[in-house]
Amino acid sequence: MPMDTMQDLLVHELRDLMSAERQLVRALPRMVRAASDPALGEALEAHLAETEEQVERLEQCFELLDSSSRGKKCKGMEGLITEAKDVLEETDDDGVRDAAIIGGAQRIEHYEIAAYGTARAFAEQLGHEEVVQLLTQSLEEEAAANELLSSLALGEVNAEAPSGKARRMQVQ
Amino acid sequence: MPMDTMQDLLVHELRDLMSAERQLVRALPRMVRAASDPALGEALEAHLAETEEQVERLEQCFELLDSSSRGKKCKGMEGLITEAKDVLEETDDDGVRDAAIIGGAQRIEHYEIAAYGTARAFAEQLGHEEVVQLLTQSLEEEAAANELLSSLALGEVNAEAPSGKARRMQVQ
Repeated sequence: MPMDTMQDLLVHELRDLMSAERQLVRALPRMVRAASDPALGEALEAHLAETEEQVERLEQCFELLDSSSRGKKCKGMEGLITEAKDVLEETDDDGVRDAAIIGGAQRIEHYEIAAYGTARAFAEQLGHEEVVQLLTQSLEEEAAANELLSSLALGEVNAEAPSGKARRMQVQ
Repeated sequence: MPMDTMQDLLVHELRDLMSAERQLVRALPRMVRAASDPALGEALEAHLAETEEQVERLEQCFELLDSSSRGKKCKGMEGLITEAKDVLEETDDDGVRDAAIIGGAQRIEHYEIAAYGTARAFAEQLGHEEVVQLLTQSLEEEAAANELLSSLALGEVNAEAPSGKARRMQVQ
Protein backbone atom coordinates (compact mmCIF):
# COMPACT_ATOMS: atom_id res chain seq x y z
CA MET A 1 0.00 0.00 0.00
CA PRO A 2 1.55 3.32 -1.03
CA MET A 3 2.06 5.90 1.69
CA ASP A 4 1.00 9.36 0.69
CA THR A 5 0.36 11.10 4.00
CA MET A 6 2.23 11.59 7.29
CA GLN A 7 -0.50 9.55 8.97
CA ASP A 8 0.34 6.60 6.68
CA LEU A 9 4.03 7.06 7.46
CA LEU A 10 3.38 7.17 11.22
CA VAL A 11 1.47 3.87 11.01
CA HIS A 12 4.30 2.42 8.89
CA GLU A 13 6.87 3.50 11.51
CA LEU A 14 4.82 1.99 14.34
CA ARG A 15 4.46 -1.32 12.45
CA ASP A 16 8.21 -1.36 11.88
CA LEU A 17 8.72 -0.78 15.62
CA MET A 18 6.21 -3.50 16.51
CA SER A 19 8.06 -6.02 14.34
CA ALA A 20 11.39 -4.84 15.79
CA GLU A 21 10.21 -5.19 19.40
CA ARG A 22 8.68 -8.62 18.76
CA GLN A 23 11.92 -9.86 17.20
CA LEU A 24 13.79 -8.50 20.20
CA VAL A 25 11.50 -10.28 22.68
CA ARG A 26 12.48 -13.54 20.96
CA ALA A 27 16.21 -12.70 20.71
CA LEU A 28 16.95 -11.26 24.17
CA PRO A 29 16.70 -14.54 26.14
CA ARG A 30 19.63 -15.94 24.16
CA MET A 31 21.70 -12.83 24.93
CA VAL A 32 20.75 -13.16 28.62
CA ARG A 33 21.96 -16.79 28.65
CA ALA A 34 25.20 -15.88 26.87
CA ALA A 35 26.09 -13.10 29.36
CA SER A 36 28.66 -14.05 32.03
CA ASP A 37 28.65 -10.88 34.13
CA PRO A 38 25.66 -11.04 36.51
CA ALA A 39 24.97 -7.28 36.24
CA LEU A 40 24.86 -7.55 32.43
CA GLY A 41 22.51 -10.55 32.59
CA GLU A 42 20.21 -8.67 34.96
CA ALA A 43 20.23 -5.54 32.77
CA LEU A 44 19.28 -7.58 29.69
CA GLU A 45 16.59 -9.46 31.61
CA ALA A 46 15.12 -6.19 32.90
CA HIS A 47 15.15 -4.86 29.35
CA LEU A 48 13.29 -7.95 28.14
CA ALA A 49 10.49 -7.13 30.60
CA GLU A 50 10.51 -3.50 29.39
CA THR A 51 10.41 -4.65 25.76
CA GLU A 52 7.28 -6.70 26.49
CA GLU A 53 5.65 -3.56 27.95
CA GLN A 54 6.76 -1.57 24.91
CA VAL A 55 4.91 -4.06 22.68
CA GLU A 56 1.77 -3.43 24.75
CA ARG A 57 2.23 0.34 24.43
CA LEU A 58 2.50 -0.02 20.65
CA GLU A 59 -0.76 -2.05 20.70
CA GLN A 60 -2.36 0.91 22.50
CA CYS A 61 -1.04 3.28 19.82
CA PHE A 62 -2.68 1.18 17.09
CA GLU A 63 -5.96 1.21 19.00
CA LEU A 64 -5.77 4.99 19.38
CA LEU A 65 -5.06 5.37 15.67
CA ASP A 66 -7.76 2.82 14.77
CA SER A 67 -5.24 0.85 12.77
CA SER A 68 -3.86 -2.70 12.57
CA SER A 69 -0.37 -3.58 13.81
CA ARG A 70 0.23 -6.02 10.97
CA GLY A 71 3.13 -5.12 8.76
CA LYS A 72 6.35 -6.31 7.15
CA LYS A 73 9.21 -7.78 9.13
CA CYS A 74 11.57 -5.02 10.26
CA LYS A 75 14.72 -5.68 8.25
CA GLY A 76 16.77 -3.21 10.26
CA MET A 77 16.25 -5.12 13.50
CA GLU A 78 16.64 -8.45 11.68
CA GLY A 79 20.16 -7.45 10.61
CA LEU A 80 21.07 -6.10 14.04
CA ILE A 81 19.96 -9.32 15.76
CA THR A 82 21.78 -11.53 13.24
CA GLU A 83 24.94 -9.51 13.84
CA ALA A 84 24.54 -9.68 17.63
CA LYS A 85 24.03 -13.47 17.49
CA ASP A 86 26.94 -14.09 15.11
CA VAL A 87 29.38 -12.38 17.45
CA LEU A 88 28.32 -14.67 20.32
CA GLU A 89 29.54 -17.65 18.35
CA GLU A 90 32.82 -16.02 17.43
CA THR A 91 33.94 -15.10 20.95
CA ASP A 92 35.82 -17.60 23.08
CA ASP A 93 36.47 -15.62 26.25
CA ASP A 94 33.61 -14.79 28.65
CA GLY A 95 34.74 -11.19 29.21
CA VAL A 96 35.24 -10.53 25.49
CA ARG A 97 31.81 -12.07 24.78
CA ASP A 98 30.22 -9.77 27.38
CA ALA A 99 31.86 -6.74 25.75
CA ALA A 100 30.58 -7.94 22.35
CA ILE A 101 27.06 -8.45 23.75
CA ILE A 102 27.07 -4.86 25.03
CA GLY A 103 28.25 -3.61 21.62
CA GLY A 104 25.42 -5.47 19.86
CA ALA A 105 22.81 -4.44 22.42
CA GLN A 106 23.81 -0.78 22.13
CA ARG A 107 23.35 -0.89 18.34
CA ILE A 108 19.87 -2.30 18.98
CA GLU A 109 19.07 0.39 21.58
CA HIS A 110 20.25 3.12 19.21
CA TYR A 111 18.05 1.70 16.46
CA GLU A 112 15.08 1.94 18.76
CA ILE A 113 15.99 5.43 19.97
CA ALA A 114 16.04 6.60 16.33
CA ALA A 115 12.82 4.77 15.46
CA TYR A 116 10.86 5.95 18.52
CA GLY A 117 12.22 9.48 18.02
CA THR A 118 11.02 9.54 14.41
CA ALA A 119 7.59 8.09 15.23
CA ARG A 120 7.14 10.52 18.11
CA ALA A 121 8.02 13.51 15.89
CA PHE A 122 5.37 12.38 13.38
CA ALA A 123 2.76 11.85 16.12
CA GLU A 124 3.54 15.31 17.57
CA GLN A 125 3.15 16.95 14.19
CA LEU A 126 -0.20 15.19 13.70
CA GLY A 127 -1.41 16.17 17.18
CA HIS A 128 -1.84 12.59 18.49
CA GLU A 129 -1.13 13.52 22.11
CA GLU A 130 -1.79 10.14 23.71
CA VAL A 131 0.40 8.39 21.16
CA VAL A 132 3.16 10.94 21.86
CA GLN A 133 2.96 10.13 25.59
CA LEU A 134 3.18 6.37 25.02
CA LEU A 135 6.13 6.72 22.63
CA THR A 136 7.90 9.11 25.01
CA GLN A 137 7.72 6.50 27.80
CA SER A 138 9.31 3.84 25.58
CA LEU A 139 11.87 6.27 24.17
CA GLU A 140 12.98 7.18 27.70
CA GLU A 141 13.32 3.49 28.61
CA GLU A 142 15.47 2.85 25.54
CA ALA A 143 17.72 5.79 26.35
CA ALA A 144 18.07 4.61 29.97
CA ALA A 145 18.84 1.04 28.83
CA ASN A 146 21.53 2.38 26.50
CA GLU A 147 23.10 4.45 29.29
CA LEU A 148 23.09 1.47 31.64
CA LEU A 149 24.89 -0.60 28.99
CA SER A 150 27.46 2.20 28.54
CA SER A 151 28.12 2.32 32.27
CA LEU A 152 28.47 -1.48 32.42
CA ALA A 153 30.94 -1.36 29.52
CA LEU A 154 33.00 1.38 31.14
CA GLY A 155 32.82 -0.36 34.51
CA GLU A 156 33.95 -3.86 35.23
CA VAL A 157 32.77 -5.81 32.20
CA ASN A 158 35.26 -4.74 29.55
CA ALA A 159 38.08 -4.25 32.05
CA GLU A 160 37.89 -7.91 33.04
CA ALA A 161 38.33 -9.15 29.47
CA PRO A 162 41.87 -10.00 28.33
CA SER A 163 43.32 -7.07 26.42
CA GLY A 164 45.29 -9.09 23.92
CA LYS A 165 48.48 -7.26 24.76
CA ALA A 166 49.50 -10.07 27.09
CA ARG A 167 48.06 -12.60 24.71
CA ARG A 168 51.21 -14.47 23.92
CA MET A 169 52.04 -14.74 27.58
CA GLN A 170 48.63 -16.25 28.26
CA VAL A 171 48.98 -18.76 25.45
CA GLN A 172 52.40 -19.87 26.58
CA MET B 1 38.62 -16.78 13.52
CA PRO B 2 37.59 -16.87 17.17
CA MET B 3 37.99 -13.64 19.15
CA ASP B 4 39.49 -14.13 22.54
CA THR B 5 40.90 -10.71 23.42
CA MET B 6 39.66 -7.11 23.44
CA GLN B 7 42.19 -6.37 20.70
CA ASP B 8 40.51 -9.01 18.48
CA LEU B 9 37.13 -7.50 19.29
CA LEU B 10 38.33 -3.97 18.48
CA VAL B 11 39.56 -5.14 15.07
CA HIS B 12 36.25 -6.95 14.53
CA GLU B 13 34.31 -3.77 15.36
CA LEU B 14 36.45 -1.70 13.01
CA ARG B 15 35.94 -4.22 10.18
CA ASP B 16 32.20 -4.11 10.81
CA LEU B 17 32.35 -0.30 10.62
CA MET B 18 34.44 -0.43 7.44
CA SER B 19 31.88 -2.67 5.76
CA ALA B 20 29.06 -0.44 7.06
CA GLU B 21 30.67 2.77 5.75
CA ARG B 22 31.45 1.21 2.36
CA GLN B 23 27.85 0.04 1.98
CA LEU B 24 26.71 3.54 2.90
CA VAL B 25 28.98 5.17 0.30
CA ARG B 26 27.18 3.06 -2.32
CA ALA B 27 23.67 3.66 -0.90
CA LEU B 28 23.72 7.40 -0.19
CA PRO B 29 23.66 8.64 -3.82
CA ARG B 30 20.27 6.98 -4.30
CA MET B 31 18.92 8.69 -1.18
CA VAL B 32 20.31 12.03 -2.44
CA ARG B 33 18.50 11.58 -5.77
CA ALA B 34 15.24 10.62 -4.03
CA ALA B 35 15.23 13.71 -1.77
CA SER B 36 12.95 16.56 -2.90
CA ASP B 37 13.83 19.19 -0.30
CA PRO B 38 17.07 20.93 -1.41
CA ALA B 39 18.39 21.25 2.18
CA LEU B 40 17.89 17.52 2.74
CA GLY B 41 19.65 16.67 -0.53
CA GLU B 42 22.58 18.91 0.42
CA ALA B 43 22.80 17.40 3.91
CA LEU B 44 22.92 13.87 2.49
CA GLU B 45 25.48 14.87 -0.12
CA ALA B 46 27.68 16.48 2.53
CA HIS B 47 27.38 13.31 4.59
CA LEU B 48 28.47 11.21 1.61
CA ALA B 49 31.68 13.25 1.45
CA GLU B 50 32.15 12.77 5.22
CA THR B 51 31.50 9.04 4.89
CA GLU B 52 34.29 8.78 2.32
CA GLU B 53 36.65 10.51 4.78
CA GLN B 54 35.50 8.15 7.53
CA VAL B 55 36.51 5.20 5.35
CA GLU B 56 39.97 6.75 5.06
CA ARG B 57 40.14 7.24 8.83
CA LEU B 58 39.29 3.59 9.33
CA GLU B 59 42.10 2.66 6.90
CA GLN B 60 44.44 4.68 9.12
CA CYS B 61 43.19 2.78 12.19
CA PHE B 62 44.01 -0.55 10.53
CA GLU B 63 47.48 0.72 9.66
CA LEU B 64 48.04 1.83 13.26
CA LEU B 65 46.86 -1.55 14.53
CA ASP B 66 48.89 -3.39 11.88
CA SER B 67 45.79 -5.24 10.77
CA SER B 68 43.78 -5.86 7.60
CA SER B 69 40.40 -4.21 6.99
CA ARG B 70 38.97 -7.31 5.34
CA GLY B 71 35.99 -8.77 7.12
CA LYS B 72 32.42 -9.96 6.78
CA LYS B 73 29.67 -7.81 5.35
CA CYS B 74 28.05 -5.78 8.12
CA LYS B 75 24.56 -7.28 8.37
CA GLY B 76 23.31 -4.49 10.62
CA MET B 77 23.95 -1.82 7.97
CA GLU B 78 22.70 -4.15 5.23
CA GLY B 79 19.31 -4.36 6.95
CA LEU B 80 19.16 -0.62 7.62
CA ILE B 81 19.91 0.22 3.99
CA THR B 82 17.37 -2.32 2.67
CA GLU B 83 14.76 -0.78 4.94
CA ALA B 84 15.66 2.78 3.89
CA LYS B 85 15.46 1.83 0.18
CA ASP B 86 12.16 -0.06 0.53
CA VAL B 87 10.45 2.96 2.02
CA LEU B 88 11.48 5.10 -0.97
CA GLU B 89 9.45 2.84 -3.24
CA GLU B 90 6.42 2.85 -0.97
CA THR B 91 6.00 6.64 -0.71
CA ASP B 92 4.03 8.54 -3.32
CA ASP B 93 4.21 12.10 -2.00
CA ASP B 94 7.50 14.06 -2.14
CA GLY B 95 7.13 15.49 1.38
CA VAL B 96 6.24 12.11 2.89
CA ARG B 97 9.19 10.52 1.07
CA ASP B 98 11.53 13.18 2.49
CA ALA B 99 10.24 12.48 6.00
CA ALA B 100 10.78 8.75 5.40
CA ILE B 101 14.32 9.37 4.09
CA ILE B 102 15.14 11.30 7.27
CA GLY B 103 13.73 8.45 9.39
CA GLY B 104 15.89 5.90 7.59
CA ALA B 105 18.99 8.09 7.64
CA GLN B 106 18.63 8.70 11.38
CA ARG B 107 18.50 4.94 12.03
CA ILE B 108 21.73 4.67 10.02
CA GLU B 109 23.37 7.53 11.94
CA HIS B 110 22.38 5.99 15.26
CA TYR B 111 23.86 2.66 14.17
CA GLU B 112 27.13 4.40 13.47
CA ILE B 113 27.04 6.41 16.69
CA ALA B 114 26.67 3.13 18.63
CA ALA B 115 29.35 1.35 16.60
CA TYR B 116 31.93 4.17 16.79
CA GLY B 117 31.15 4.62 20.49
CA THR B 118 31.80 0.94 21.16
CA ALA B 119 34.99 0.83 19.09
CA ARG B 120 36.29 4.00 20.75
CA ALA B 121 35.63 2.59 24.23
CA PHE B 122 37.64 -0.54 23.31
CA ALA B 123 40.48 1.55 21.83
CA GLU B 124 40.56 3.74 24.96
CA GLN B 125 40.73 0.74 27.22
CA LEU B 126 43.60 -0.68 25.15
CA GLY B 127 45.46 2.66 25.16
CA HIS B 128 45.44 3.14 21.35
CA GLU B 129 45.45 6.93 21.56
CA GLU B 130 45.72 7.72 17.84
CA VAL B 131 42.90 5.30 17.04
CA VAL B 132 40.79 6.97 19.75
CA GLN B 133 41.37 10.37 18.12
CA LEU B 134 40.40 9.15 14.64
CA LEU B 135 37.26 7.44 15.93
CA THR B 136 36.30 10.52 17.97
CA GLN B 137 36.41 12.66 14.82
CA SER B 138 34.07 10.30 12.96
CA LEU B 139 31.81 9.87 15.99
CA GLU B 140 31.40 13.65 16.26
CA GLU B 141 30.56 13.88 12.55
CA GLU B 142 27.90 11.18 12.90
CA ALA B 143 26.36 12.94 15.90
CA ALA B 144 26.32 16.27 14.02
CA ALA B 145 24.77 14.62 10.93
CA ASN B 146 22.06 13.11 13.12
CA GLU B 147 21.31 16.48 14.73
CA LEU B 148 21.12 18.19 11.35
CA LEU B 149 18.61 15.54 10.19
CA SER B 150 16.56 16.11 13.37
CA SER B 151 16.46 19.85 12.77
CA LEU B 152 15.47 19.33 9.11
CA ALA B 153 12.67 17.00 10.23
CA LEU B 154 11.41 19.45 12.81
CA GLY B 155 11.74 22.34 10.37
CA GLU B 156 10.07 22.56 7.01
CA VAL B 157 10.45 19.06 5.60
CA ASN B 158 7.82 17.16 7.58
CA ALA B 159 5.52 20.16 7.93
CA GLU B 160 5.19 20.40 4.15
CA ALA B 161 4.02 16.80 3.79
CA PRO B 162 0.26 16.16 3.73
CA SER B 163 -0.93 15.13 7.18
CA GLY B 164 -3.59 12.69 6.06
CA LYS B 165 -6.24 14.39 8.13
CA ALA B 166 -7.56 16.23 5.07
CA ARG B 167 -6.92 13.17 2.94
CA ARG B 168 -10.47 12.52 1.85
CA MET B 169 -10.85 16.12 0.82
CA GLN B 170 -7.70 15.84 -1.29
CA VAL B 171 -8.90 12.68 -2.96
CA GLN B 172 -12.33 14.08 -3.80
